[in-house]
Amino acid sequence: MTPPEVEEGRDDYRDFYRGRRVMITGGAGFIGSNLARQLAILGADTLIVDSLIPEYGGNLFNLHGIEDRVRLNIADVRMQSSMEALVRDRDVIFNLAGQVSHIDSMQDPYTDLEINCRAQLSILEACRKYNRQVRVVFAGTRQVYGRPDYLPVDEKHLVRPADINGVNKAAGEYYHLLYNNVFDIRACSLRLTNVYGPRQLIKHNRQGFIGWFIRLALEGAEIQVFGDGTQLRDFVYVDDAADAFLRAGANGACDGEVLNVGGDETVSHRDLVRVLVEIAGSGSVRFVEWPADKKRIDIGSFYSDSSRFRGITGWRPRVTLEEGLRQTLAFYREHYKQYVTEEARDEVLR
Amino acid sequence: MTPPEVEEGRDDYRDFYRGRRVMITGGAGFIGSNLARQLAILGADTLIVDSLIPEYGGNLFNLHGIEDRVRLNIADVRMQSSMEALVRDRDVIFNLAGQVSHIDSMQDPYTDLEINCRAQLSILEACRKYNRQVRVVFAGTRQVYGRPDYLPVDEKHLVRPADINGVNKAAGEYYHLLYNNVFDIRACSLRLTNVYGPRQLIKHNRQGFIGWFIRLALEGAEIQVFGDGTQLRDFVYVDDAADAFLRAGANGACDGEVLNVGGDETVSHRDLVRVLVEIAGSGSVRFVEWPADKKRIDIGSFYSDSSRFRGITGWRPRVTLEEGLRQTLAFYREHYKQYVTEEARDEVLR
Repeated sequence: MTPPEVEEGRDDYRDFYRGRRVMITGGAGFIGSNLARQLAILGADTLIVDSLIPEYGGNLFNLHGIEDRVRLNIADVRMQSSMEALVRDRDVIFNLAGQVSHIDSMQDPYTDLEINCRAQLSILEACRKYNRQVRVVFAGTRQVYGRPDYLPVDEKHLVRPADINGVNKAAGEYYHLLYNNVFDIRACSLRLTNVYGPRQLIKHNRQGFIGWFIRLALEGAEIQVFGDGTQLRDFVYVDDAADAFLRAGANGACDGEVLNVGGDETVSHRDLVRVLVEIAGSGSVRFVEWPADKKRIDIGSFYSDSSRFRGITGWRPRVTLEEGLRQTLAFYREHYKQYVTEEARDEVLR
Repeated sequence: MTPPEVEEGRDDYRDFYRGRRVMITGGAGFIGSNLARQLAILGADTLIVDSLIPEYGGNLFNLHGIEDRVRLNIADVRMQSSMEALVRDRDVIFNLAGQVSHIDSMQDPYTDLEINCRAQLSILEACRKYNRQVRVVFAGTRQVYGRPDYLPVDEKHLVRPADINGVNKAAGEYYHLLYNNVFDIRACSLRLTNVYGPRQLIKHNRQGFIGWFIRLALEGAEIQVFGDGTQLRDFVYVDDAADAFLRAGANGACDGEVLNVGGDETVSHRDLVRVLVEIAGSGSVRFVEWPADKKRIDIGSFYSDSSRFRGITGWRPRVTLEEGLRQTLAFYREHYKQYVTEEARDEVLR
């Protein structure tokens, strides 16, 4: 029994999920699994869809402890027929499945296109055919902005992606808005900045620098920072990111919107690594020349203005960078072997 | 023998094409074939690539009279291996192949994605692998802007497509810019407004209203205008559009740019039809309610600011709407049977 749709205010968004039929694509991944844990606490009826592709972020250990409160369905969002079957009775879809490596997208643009572009269309088509009542919250990315014209970047900034992944994520996002506007499939996109925290993939370095830096610090290894490390970023702890999804999924005022979700603090790579090494009590830093291929898709400093999202939903990040790094390091210390395979470790430590 | 790359000024862009190895994807289509005719006059070595898909704009008659001065290769841009073979020795690629029906894109989003999104990626990948010296001029569209926030629309306006075709054209365009910036495949995009003129598809009404209105006027039929017909548009005669491509293809200052190409005059649908019926001496107008499905993807008034493109290349439209319509009507009067099949005509006149 699903409760009736509530008029959501700013404080009762958590109640909204009691018994709510929710689906999370990419639900065994980094943000998805942390969101699933929140939904388990809130008593939602949670269906996790994940492909568990080895090189991607899905990891069964991410669901450790909530196995009996969620339902896992292994499926690939590229399989249209599976999506058509899965979306049918869901009230809210948190659409987080994606190919997230910028680097991989430049090596193999077609796979990125299939997952981030075509599969998004097929999820929305499935909703149009079989579940027009649903609300979809899409995991967008600050990456669609490319190299910023001004800082902080708000939603009025032009979309001008600097890599293939950014182009395909932009298209995936546009589809969501279009289905909201034309087909009444309520949908919005959260353009996330750098999210970090427990349950992030750290077994290779192709999914963003922060998880990788955390791993290197943990292992007492040298962290290489490109250039002088003065480029700025904002960071969001994964619990805060999960909270943003919960708020958007319960709030009709987000429908049809593109909303930045970014951090409070602006931190240089240089300072990030300094703090990280300090908290970890291990690891070191070395500044190196930019590799040519990475330099070409680098976007310089970036931080975002999330005031629209805050204004609509009351969201604000609660976990400071220091506290977040502390919790993250503690998590990986405890569960290191679940995230780093022996072979991959040998590779790095060699 | 290709001439050496010239330092292009504003006036010698036409000389640039003498002996130049050019490829036009969609070269048997509306704009592509008019461009091919110009290139034939200029003495270019022109390779036309077209799929000749019956429902699309390619029409062998469009190449009538220049058959011995161009080379036609029937191929579909979705076939990666064909593209890899075809791009190899070309100096300039005018990349005009596309699925252009907004309406079809909403019925069959996947085909639109394959042609306007994935195939664009594979053309660029082919260049990256086999022809990094090439320059690509992409046929973009004003449609990526969606419903405008302000008029006239310049390139600083947000991209916010209102239909699937617009999303996929936006992605196709972003790929071009990305390959310019990251892989040194020189590329730019011309965001065209409503182009009209001889050799446009008029056998069905799913490729934009202007060709269809021209046909109805010719046939003495009733032209239905949705709403009160006060929405504004700008129009570009196809020879002016072809001239824009020639200028962009010869001008390194366009590389990496997105440039609006729009008309001088701003005309309401109502006035367009009045002028058309007057010049044709046949046809009539009736104002009807907006069909719900069309209303939802309507963008209201739109006209664009092309001053950047004019500033860079010296382009300006030379053919007035009245003169353009006159030439267009004369062309279709003479060659009506080449553009309207018996069956399709019976369908409309019934």
